[in-house]
Amino acid sequence: MAKKPLILITNDDGITAPGIRTLIEVMLELGDVVVVAPDSPQSAMGHAITINSTLFCDTVVIDPDATHKEYSCSGTPVDCVKLANREILNRKPDICVSGINHGSNSSINVIYSGTMSAAVEAGVEGIPAIGFSLLDYSLNADFEACKTFVRSITKQVLENGLPKGIVLNVNIPKLKKDAIKGVKVCRQAKAMWVENFDKRTNPMGREYYWLSGEFVNHDKGEDTDEWALKNGYVTVVPVQFDLTAHHFIQELNSWDFK
Amino acid sequence: MAKKPLILITNDDGITAPGIRTLIEVMLELGDVVVVAPDSPQSAMGHAITINSTLFCDTVVIDPDATHKEYSCSGTPVDCVKLANREILNRKPDICVSGINHGSNSSINVIYSGTMSAAVEAGVEGIPAIGFSLLDYSLNADFEACKTFVRSITKQVLENGLPKGIVLNVNIPKLKKDAIKGVKVCRQAKAMWVENFDKRTNPMGREYYWLSGEFVNHDKGEDTDEWALKNGYVTVVPVQFDLTAHHFIQELNSWDFK
Repeated sequence: MAKKPLILITNDDGITAPGIRTLIEVMLELGDVVVVAPDSPQSAMGHAITINSTLFCDTVVIDPDATHKEYSCSGTPVDCVKLANREILNRKPDICVSGINHGSNSSINVIYSGTMSAAVEAGVEGIPAIGFSLLDYSLNADFEACKTFVRSITKQVLENGLPKGIVLNVNIPKLKKDAIKGVKVCRQAKAMWVENFDKRTNPMGREYYWLSGEFVNHDKGEDTDEWALKNGYVTVVPVQFDLTAHHFIQELNSWDFK
Repeated sequence: MAKKPLILITNDDGITAPGIRTLIEVMLELGDVVVVAPDSPQSAMGHAITINSTLFCDTVVIDPDATHKEYSCSGTPVDCVKLANREILNRKPDICVSGINHGSNSSINVIYSGTMSAAVEAGVEGIPAIGFSLLDYSLNADFEACKTFVRSITKQVLENGLPKGIVLNVNIPKLKKDAIKGVKVCRQAKAMWVENFDKRTNPMGREYYWLSGEFVNHDKGEDTDEWALKNGYVTVVPVQFDLTAHHFIQELNSWDFK
């Protein structure tokens, strides 16, 4: 690529999270970087957008030596992508990368994830996009092993492009680099969260809940992201946002809607 | 059906919105109803869930003559479905219906919609589910024509069930009943929003944005929801939450990830 690619970076853990700092470090090797990310944690925001409230979006300096620009936004990850493309960038980015998320976005987590929704939004706007996640929720997670895979997968997307309507969901196991067996292309495992609400009473006597739960995977397939992550692989799932269940259209047409 | 079906009702416009009141009215003809809906508007919340904050969920009486129970929840539409299934209902509902949304959830709107995300969440939890939307954003929208179609489509789902992994996205044009041509099974049109941020300055001199935009449909297909709605049909799109782009897995496997 003669000209350096323009790389839009966002996340859902907030602009100061270690995960996005690692992602920026790797992307600076590959192209011109602009960061537009939430000013606060936005995990589990899904594809939420801000329509009933205003959005702030200001330049910030997090690394004083940095030569790239960073913008901190009061909205959701999807807001960040929209603002970047319409207001901040003066040309369409060549790629949008989101993450590196602190915690898994494998399987059904893809639909709750702000990280992946940002990537999907970029995809909707016709930009090749990847969401990266490390299977470690802690704020001091070790992102060192991620770098190699983030670099090689991003390079492949820059070289090959992605078909319209598809973005990539990349998850990285919590392992040292030498223990990671390689990269596996997978399908999303059919799994779900079984919630276990923690019911409490506030000082005024009113009941309230904390949402918590357990991830349950009934999918025994060895072609799934869950299987591959458990077996030491980095997973790549191609994700689409045409949600139509095309295979069910014919049967639905036989229904009697009157 | 010998036993009356248990029907869980939710929405994203809030528990007092006219759309959900119409939905409740129709569902009371078909089964035992429990309402668990947000206490305030939650449009465009996508599949957001509340993980960093507490949830209130209280019984409320909106119609003094009602014999069914209603719960008002401080969370998102997806939170409502999770709370209903784990804490409020003593058995798995036979169906979950969400809406009737004030405004379209056709095409790409499905991924931003709290109404549809609630239906998808029910689907993830193994409950047949339908999201209903009327193409009229106004609070005093006329839901009269919706009733027939909401009734017949819900009855079909109660009779036929839905395959695992599929929920229905139903949109109803803003037309008098006689002007509606019928029900059409469709695919999601490939369309997008082109944002036009409105940039302003607050009294303290800080710039801020309002998100607004225009819906742009480049999909000329006559099998799409957009085409059918424009041509006077109620649309039914089967929606899946396995987002894997299965058709791209083979090609991705040829990439050189190193």
